[in-house]
Amino acid sequence: MCQLLGMNCIAPTDVMFSFSGFAERGGRTDHHKDGWGIAFFEDKGVRHFVDHQAAAESPVAELIRRYPIKSRNVIAHIRKATQGAVTLQNCHPFVRELWGRYWVFAHNGDLKDYAPRLHGGFRPVGETDSERAFCWLMQELAKAHATVPSVADLTLTLGELVPRIARHGVFNFLFSNGEALWAHASTKLCYALRQHPFGRVTLSDDDLSLNLAELTTPADRVAVVATTPLTQDETWIPLTPGELKVFVDGAPV
Amino acid sequence: MCQLLGMNCIAPTDVMFSFSGFAERGGRTDHHKDGWGIAFFEDKGVRHFVDHQAAAESPVAELIRRYPIKSRNVIAHIRKATQGAVTLQNCHPFVRELWGRYWVFAHNGDLKDYAPRLHGGFRPVGETDSERAFCWLMQELAKAHATVPSVADLTLTLGELVPRIARHGVFNFLFSNGEALWAHASTKLCYALRQHPFGRVTLSDDDLSLNLAELTTPADRVAVVATTPLTQDETWIPLTPGELKVFVDGAPV
Repeated sequence: MCQLLGMNCIAPTDVMFSFSGFAERGGRTDHHKDGWGIAFFEDKGVRHFVDHQAAAESPVAELIRRYPIKSRNVIAHIRKATQGAVTLQNCHPFVRELWGRYWVFAHNGDLKDYAPRLHGGFRPVGETDSERAFCWLMQELAKAHATVPSVADLTLTLGELVPRIARHGVFNFLFSNGEALWAHASTKLCYALRQHPFGRVTLSDDDLSLNLAELTTPADRVAVVATTPLTQDETWIPLTPGELKVFVDGAPV
Repeated sequence: MCQLLGMNCIAPTDVMFSFSGFAERGGRTDHHKDGWGIAFFEDKGVRHFVDHQAAAESPVAELIRRYPIKSRNVIAHIRKATQGAVTLQNCHPFVRELWGRYWVFAHNGDLKDYAPRLHGGFRPVGETDSERAFCWLMQELAKAHATVPSVADLTLTLGELVPRIARHGVFNFLFSNGEALWAHASTKLCYALRQHPFGRVTLSDDDLSLNLAELTTPADRVAVVATTPLTQDETWIPLTPGELKVFVDGAPV
């Protein structure tokens, strides 16, 4: 299995602190060493970094830990291969364009005997169940809407489509178009909200602590979603099995 | 206008040397400071780095200069904005998926009054003439072939499509699916071949020189394509206006 990290914010925020703890799980505090990836939206553009080296050892991950890329929507993934070889084309997150927008997807889980009919404009490049699921989702979204739908409409469509994939196995995922962050849990996904008044936060996986009050303004608001809690001193709310949650401007809708 | 750099090799090769000279043109030895980008194929996967900072100052470009990412097909671009704001979504190269393969495109030039009919599965995310041209090319390739064509067939199709864009203005571009590198010149593009016996090469834009004989085996072969010659001591062959050249395994076909 793999691990997921997502961030949705009201204003562009860097992910250095959360990513530092998360990347430790990629080979050091945990065994997810078969590659990793991260995508940052900046306006409509995406910075997309993937690497088949362990996140704990990757020079690219080191760059992300040090370079404050500010984004309102971030999706990161560290991989423990279940299906597909350890190659770059099998690293999440995956990116596709639809309606002149980029769409980013990362999956934690395992879909058994999952061979959807892909007759549209989206085909997997790698061999993972995850990318097949993403391509099917994009194909069905392209059929359901003529152009970029509202967050509310898209959430309704996802609510109809996702169970058709989830019945094949474990399907925890993060999905974003830069406007909102969708999180679906079959088994394991939780989130924490960071908002005024901010306090001190301490990573569970690394010897690192930050006083958010010194780094934020009262207007800041950030939702962090992860497979398991990243910090010791925040309230992490688990998603219930089958729950699809959407975050906009740093808060659940 | 912008500048292009492409590399096509018989075996995975790092681009650190050529990129070092090229990146100097992004704000230091030349005025192309409105962002930059580079894409490396690794098997069927792509590493794609874009940044709207000047290449000469970007921490991501610094990583590329130091980290030996080995690839058989590389496309890089430094931007001097003519159309579209300095934003991430306007940075080349652009990436799309078709037939389960990634396709990478970067353009140098300026297309006037270019508004192709985009009725297929590829829409621009940003506002550049370049991304419009790429989307139209992908749309027409998708109509012309049912699955990934051979390099020879794809070259024939491109040979028919490209003049329909080129009549709108300057259309120097690099294009790759990880198997071959296509280069088209309307005005300015040249290439050098590096093969046995290797000698010493010296960058035109940076105080850097390498003895390739010490770093290569006789089986290595690399074609480097650039807007203007990158080195002082190699033979750079200019493409003629309207010429479409395809490189496979480090040599022109």
